[in-house]
Amino acid sequence: MNYDYLLYLAIILISTKLLGLVTRRAHMPQVVGALVAGLILGPACLNLVHGSVFLNQVSEIGVIGLMFMAGLETDTEELKRSGLASFIIALFGVLFPLAGGLGIAIACHVASPELSASELLQNMFIGIILTATSVSITVETLKEMGKVSTKAGTAILGAAIIDDILGIIALTVITSMADPSTNILFVLLKIIGFFVFAILFGVIFGFVTQKWISFDPRPNRRHVILAFAFCLLMSYCAEHFFGVADITGAYVAGLILSHSTKREVIYHQFDTVSYLLVAPVFFASIGLKVELSSMSDNLLLFTALLLIVAILTKILGCGLGAKMMGYTSKESLQIGIGMISRGEVALIVANKGESLGLLSDSLYAPIVVTVVITTIITPIFLKLAFKDKK
Amino acid sequence: MNYDYLLYLAIILISTKLLGLVTRRAHMPQVVGALVAGLILGPACLNLVHGSVFLNQVSEIGVIGLMFMAGLETDTEELKRSGLASFIIALFGVLFPLAGGLGIAIACHVASPELSASELLQNMFIGIILTATSVSITVETLKEMGKVSTKAGTAILGAAIIDDILGIIALTVITSMADPSTNILFVLLKIIGFFVFAILFGVIFGFVTQKWISFDPRPNRRHVILAFAFCLLMSYCAEHFFGVADITGAYVAGLILSHSTKREVIYHQFDTVSYLLVAPVFFASIGLKVELSSMSDNLLLFTALLLIVAILTKILGCGLGAKMMGYTSKESLQIGIGMISRGEVALIVANKGESLGLLSDSLYAPIVVTVVITTIITPIFLKLAFKDKK
Repeated sequence: MNYDYLLYLAIILISTKLLGLVTRRAHMPQVVGALVAGLILGPACLNLVHGSVFLNQVSEIGVIGLMFMAGLETDTEELKRSGLASFIIALFGVLFPLAGGLGIAIACHVASPELSASELLQNMFIGIILTATSVSITVETLKEMGKVSTKAGTAILGAAIIDDILGIIALTVITSMADPSTNILFVLLKIIGFFVFAILFGVIFGFVTQKWISFDPRPNRRHVILAFAFCLLMSYCAEHFFGVADITGAYVAGLILSHSTKREVIYHQFDTVSYLLVAPVFFASIGLKVELSSMSDNLLLFTALLLIVAILTKILGCGLGAKMMGYTSKESLQIGIGMISRGEVALIVANKGESLGLLSDSLYAPIVVTVVITTIITPIFLKLAFKDKK
Repeated sequence: MNYDYLLYLAIILISTKLLGLVTRRAHMPQVVGALVAGLILGPACLNLVHGSVFLNQVSEIGVIGLMFMAGLETDTEELKRSGLASFIIALFGVLFPLAGGLGIAIACHVASPELSASELLQNMFIGIILTATSVSITVETLKEMGKVSTKAGTAILGAAIIDDILGIIALTVITSMADPSTNILFVLLKIIGFFVFAILFGVIFGFVTQKWISFDPRPNRRHVILAFAFCLLMSYCAEHFFGVADITGAYVAGLILSHSTKREVIYHQFDTVSYLLVAPVFFASIGLKVELSSMSDNLLLFTALLLIVAILTKILGCGLGAKMMGYTSKESLQIGIGMISRGEVALIVANKGESLGLLSDSLYAPIVVTVVITTIITPIFLKLAFKDKK
């Protein structure tokens, strides 16, 4: 029996926490530090920790957990309130990066040559990765400046929620199409089938949970375990029966349970498992997959283009959407800048793409660079955009 | 990519919780239900869930977590107070089952024939499994009857702590000897080396943790992550450098951190990860390993003998120890009965033995039966032993 996985786990926990604290000190999210920890531990630098089936599956549970928590956090009331303006901002903020990512992917020929039949899908996948905004760094910056409840702040919050949902839909469609044998009508039927199933399953599960309530002296624990099992089953069924990504299943499971009275308890207990075990493994494992030595000149150029496209398409897309909905030019710029930063979801989507053969390993490095740099510049740009106002 | 592990995990979580609640309703620990869930899911019954590398390693982390928490819970102050009487009770309560287990193992020739050189070790291992009392069911029963603070109650609590430590020492010695190339002196040196290392490492780790304190805005999380990493490193180092069982490392890590001011926080956060993910997998995986079809007549006889020996050696051993220390006959009987029940630790030790080749798979069934039945009868016997008093 080999006990190396205990050592690897310990190294991952210590290094992600240590570097996470360093980035937090520099007013950046701990995710950036955790990514860098993976980079340092992996083949890009020390080559100390090696991937394994165990780390992969723990990391997959980490991803499922993060998406489940994202679903749980989704404020569907806020969604209704923020209405059409946020929807239009989010829509343009998804379409522009999608087109931009596809454009530079085609221009740079980054799709791996052996899968040329589905090359368009692979190129589109670069666009999909660029769609999801990570709003947490923006929210923290706005809070610090006391600007959360400005017109621009409210629009950003609403758009970020819709942005996630649109991103999930785009991901669901593209991953369902990854199986080349199916036609587009069948794919759409399966996706609709999944959502019908999700609602039915959610209702049945809620009913059973309610019935079960009288038995357990520690009702919270039962709720959390059932919620976790529900999330796992939804993830499994999404993949197995509907050809939809497991993370879509997890997100929808979270969305359904976001209406539960136990939402807070579920979130809190899940958060413990996430920060203490599965999430550090996920973030580090992304870094572990980056091999800098494989960075050709073409890939370096692609990295620079990806970063520029990631920044500009959000500013232009969201800004245009905001302008169309009657915001001032300054507010539109603020909104566009607030939506630049990418984070967990971009990494999760990239990870998914790799396991589906839609993304080659060599593209991890450009994506990680894009996530790290957009995260760093967003608060800087935001402060500038809001400072002008005074 | 295969997503079956998501389904298995969901099934394990739901079934262990469901049956755990059923056994809890019947005033038995949830462990019994979780074991039965594994039995039902595995080859002994439905053959629905299959073992995998992932489940094995998650289950190993579950074991390490359980032993770490056992160490954290150890009340070293209580240990000093309870003193000599508890020590003698625990010592006889370990020596008798050790001898009894060895005796029936030799009588029934249960050791697997291909490892005949180390057959004595394998036979002794049956004794080791019988040493560890699981006092939780006794404590709950005593609480229910309002007898925790009786003379017998106090003696049981003290003896149960020392019992764990003696069991760990016995396990450490026997697993260190499992490597046939080493002589006994070298084995002892390595064990002493491990404890010296543990203390040094504990001091250094405590110092580093203290230094780190000023950085983190969420100090609890940092403490818990570092504690977990410490536990994993101790487990790894125990196995890798000293040939000592990883669970010994985890227990000692817990023992060292039981003096930490953050003990409560660490325990609580760990408990969440344990009940929500790793512990159900461990208990179910024990049940999954039981194959009833392989129960020969000889094995059935062995099961019956193992059960009888498990019960009698604790009553006689602990009872004799108590009698020698001046307790009345009635109190001695109460103490002996209170120490009968076996639980997690017996299963953990059996699991360890299997991975070291000291225990054949076919012996899981007798051990699971022993754990389940001793757990069921202990409260019944205890109530009888205390009722006489009135």
